[in-house]
Amino acid sequence: MATTVNADVGEGIGLHQFGNDEELMTLIDVANVACGFHASDPQVMEKTVRLASDNGVAVGAHPGLPDIAGFGRRAMTLNRDEVENLVRYQVGALTGFLKKYGTELNHIKPHGALYGMVGRDPELMRGVARVASDYGVAVLGLANTEHRRICEETGVPFIAEIYVDLNYAPDGTLIIERSPAPADPAAAADRVRTALSEGWTEAVDGTRLPVTFGSVCVHSDPANAPDVVRAVRSAIDDIEHGQ
Amino acid sequence: MATTVNADVGEGIGLHQFGNDEELMTLIDVANVACGFHASDPQVMEKTVRLASDNGVAVGAHPGLPDIAGFGRRAMTLNRDEVENLVRYQVGALTGFLKKYGTELNHIKPHGALYGMVGRDPELMRGVARVASDYGVAVLGLANTEHRRICEETGVPFIAEIYVDLNYAPDGTLIIERSPAPADPAAAADRVRTALSEGWTEAVDGTRLPVTFGSVCVHSDPANAPDVVRAVRSAIDDIEHGQ
Amino acid sequence: MATTVNADVGEGIGLHQFGNDEELMTLIDVANVACGFHASDPQVMEKTVRLASDNGVAVGAHPGLPDIAGFGRRAMTLNRDEVENLVRYQVGALTGFLKKYGTELNHIKPHGALYGMVGRDPELMRGVARVASDYGVAVLGLANTEHRRICEETGVPFIAEIYVDLNYAPDGTLIIERSPAPADPAAAADRVRTALSEGWTEAVDGTRLPVTFGSVCVHSDPANAPDVVRAVRSAIDDIEHGQ
Amino acid sequence: MATTVNADVGEGIGLHQFGNDEELMTLIDVANVACGFHASDPQVMEKTVRLASDNGVAVGAHPGLPDIAGFGRRAMTLNRDEVENLVRYQVGALTGFLKKYGTELNHIKPHGALYGMVGRDPELMRGVARVASDYGVAVLGLANTEHRRICEETGVPFIAEIYVDLNYAPDGTLIIERSPAPADPAAAADRVRTALSEGWTEAVDGTRLPVTFGSVCVHSDPANAPDVVRAVRSAIDDIEHGQ
Repeated sequence: MATTVNADVGEGIGLHQFGNDEELMTLIDVANVACGFHASDPQVMEKTVRLASDNGVAVGAHPGLPDIAGFGRRAMTLNRDEVENLVRYQVGALTGFLKKYGTELNHIKPHGALYGMVGRDPELMRGVARVASDYGVAVLGLANTEHRRICEETGVPFIAEIYVDLNYAPDGTLIIERSPAPADPAAAADRVRTALSEGWTEAVDGTRLPVTFGSVCVHSDPANAPDVVRAVRSAIDDIEHGQ
Repeated sequence: MATTVNADVGEGIGLHQFGNDEELMTLIDVANVACGFHASDPQVMEKTVRLASDNGVAVGAHPGLPDIAGFGRRAMTLNRDEVENLVRYQVGALTGFLKKYGTELNHIKPHGALYGMVGRDPELMRGVARVASDYGVAVLGLANTEHRRICEETGVPFIAEIYVDLNYAPDGTLIIERSPAPADPAAAADRVRTALSEGWTEAVDGTRLPVTFGSVCVHSDPANAPDVVRAVRSAIDDIEHGQ
Repeated sequence: MATTVNADVGEGIGLHQFGNDEELMTLIDVANVACGFHASDPQVMEKTVRLASDNGVAVGAHPGLPDIAGFGRRAMTLNRDEVENLVRYQVGALTGFLKKYGTELNHIKPHGALYGMVGRDPELMRGVARVASDYGVAVLGLANTEHRRICEETGVPFIAEIYVDLNYAPDGTLIIERSPAPADPAAAADRVRTALSEGWTEAVDGTRLPVTFGSVCVHSDPANAPDVVRAVRSAIDDIEHGQ
Repeated sequence: MATTVNADVGEGIGLHQFGNDEELMTLIDVANVACGFHASDPQVMEKTVRLASDNGVAVGAHPGLPDIAGFGRRAMTLNRDEVENLVRYQVGALTGFLKKYGTELNHIKPHGALYGMVGRDPELMRGVARVASDYGVAVLGLANTEHRRICEETGVPFIAEIYVDLNYAPDGTLIIERSPAPADPAAAADRVRTALSEGWTEAVDGTRLPVTFGSVCVHSDPANAPDVVRAVRSAIDDIEHGQ
């Protein structure tokens, strides 16, 4: 199965635009759609699901912490029930818009600090896995974390992703930043080529981390996100279609 | 079909409790569950749907305006898309919890000022009807308003309700208050008996308003709500089962 | 006293930037700073007050309705106490940041739909005037509305402003839009020149509306806002300094 | 100087009442008033400051984390600027209401998880101390934490408080609970008597913790809060006024 390109989209709020969703949606395979807690609102969600539908992009839920001022990138101390319920609420909200466009939910990918929290804490990740299990969808996450381990434990399908615009710590975890710097398209393509053909990526200290993955994530914050997606897509095509 | 008793429930937020849901759920047939915009949060919604499920109470969505400080009782100027999307978002969110308990969505009943807004404005009511149509559920509302008219126009099932703790204007519309006064249980029972057996209820100026209805709504705010429900239930049983 | 140029600023939220405050602050005399209800958050407010302080720009409060998704541009049904209290809360919040920079509050200018609501309803405007009176500051608003009338009635200083990027109705009220279109800098300058030298501006139907004013407002939403400010400034200088 | 009794008040939201502020305000010396982030809203704040003013109770700000569903009792990862700015915003907002009643700000006491966070992290506490310093008021907090240490370091007046309805860990820190259990009034009075006359209080494991303090805090959540305040007051009077 071909490696896909995914991006977090629909992160505007009201008049506040964020990222270049119109162009990105013509380039990506899979969209992680914000659900109103860290960003978005019902108007933005409708528009985002419509855009995805128009472009044949698969739609997953991208639930976040309830913190618009912090864009869901500030960790909160939550218990498992709280994580499960806030994911369940946001996933359900998204399905209201999917129903309008006759689309099925494709997957769940937690956002920002929640992504990190459930990657480290198996109990919290079980909350996410229960919602994915109820909806019969996969979780999109990091291979070397509780994302994968709990999905395997609970029988939830798991799709591993790598990042081309965030650094990895030597232990293989992502270094999440409040506001990611723009990636260099050529460097992003190189990372993808190496990861696909040689099976590793480089941590911030030079350590070679083994990776297997089904999707590449590109952040939509920076203005050059479409260029990064094009470079990543081209790298995938080079390797997988032997061009 | 027997006349049902419905109540708005699940209107607490975090540590802030509201109404006596535990007792009410043992008494009502149909629950209108708050969805997080005018009240509630994901924790409260989970608990409320669980309570309804444990008591065999049918669960409908009770979407409101995004205004916790005003409890959704302050009208806002919204267009049809905004109404449709905020109803869609909240209904979807509720289905996330219904999925956990294997329950189906029973109906949609807009809350507070939104209930009044869509009752007066056919265009806004069309937004609600579209969501009900997509989910294949009925709308619970007032007979002599756009609630019924637009449901008929769009083929959405409609269940009429009467209120025993709010007054009616001479034109048959409800007089919505920020904080409803407690109803007298005996007076509430009288209103139900008259409405069921003679087909009318009295407006605030003494006008006799013709009513046909399938459900009686009791507000859960006042402390005596369970007593009011018992009195109403008893009145329904008197008339419909001839004791 | 010279006619000033004012703009609404500080309307970003978290990572969501809005308008070009850095450049605008070097061009305007008076800033209306968003206070967290329709836009902004404590981080953005700190940064905005600092920018104003660095550029010697006078800082007024720009309180709005509690509605981030609607950017405070959707009217709400509020009573006088609610208006007074939400203005009081936001004005107070802003003074926390003014205190840090040793700056005094310059004025109060309600935002968006609140601006329109208090312009039409004298009772609501009295709520705003009470806060202005308590703080001993002026209200910035429209001359031919309750803004001015209630300020005169209550002894609150009033500064009239005209808009160069919104249209006027024939009755002299502003036509407030959810998302104002960019103004043409030359047309904006023309409007200012005519208003200053001949004392009238044109309504949307061609009616000549008499205007007297102390400030010109430029919206910061459109990308060309700095150009519009420069054009307006140049027009003011032409007329007032006889260049 | 006599030992005072303080309580957290004004923690309702809209129609959601919380605690028995009317009675408590007739019994306490010092009120910590919620500022809209973990609880309260502009209407509630106005009413709370008025109640305090009517009863001659000193008013301090009780700023919390932006988390109504969690009542500010779920820790968040914030940096010093974020803490300083959200405290500054809330303290400022409160002063808007103090201005109406001609009252001065008495002190700042962070709420819930924020209280714990700034008690453990000197850098975060510096953010609180800066705001207290700008307003020239004391911080109310725990003696054996960064609350006191950073106040001493930065020259901000500090008032130590003890709790009669929360347990202490053996290291002297408070064990903060999401929903505190009601205190037994007699046990609360005993703790105060021992603390005042013998200078220690007991940790959850029996350790005797030395304490010196100027105020006793009683939580307003439980229904018996007024009884607890009366018992504490009586114990203080016994010791300090020799009956």
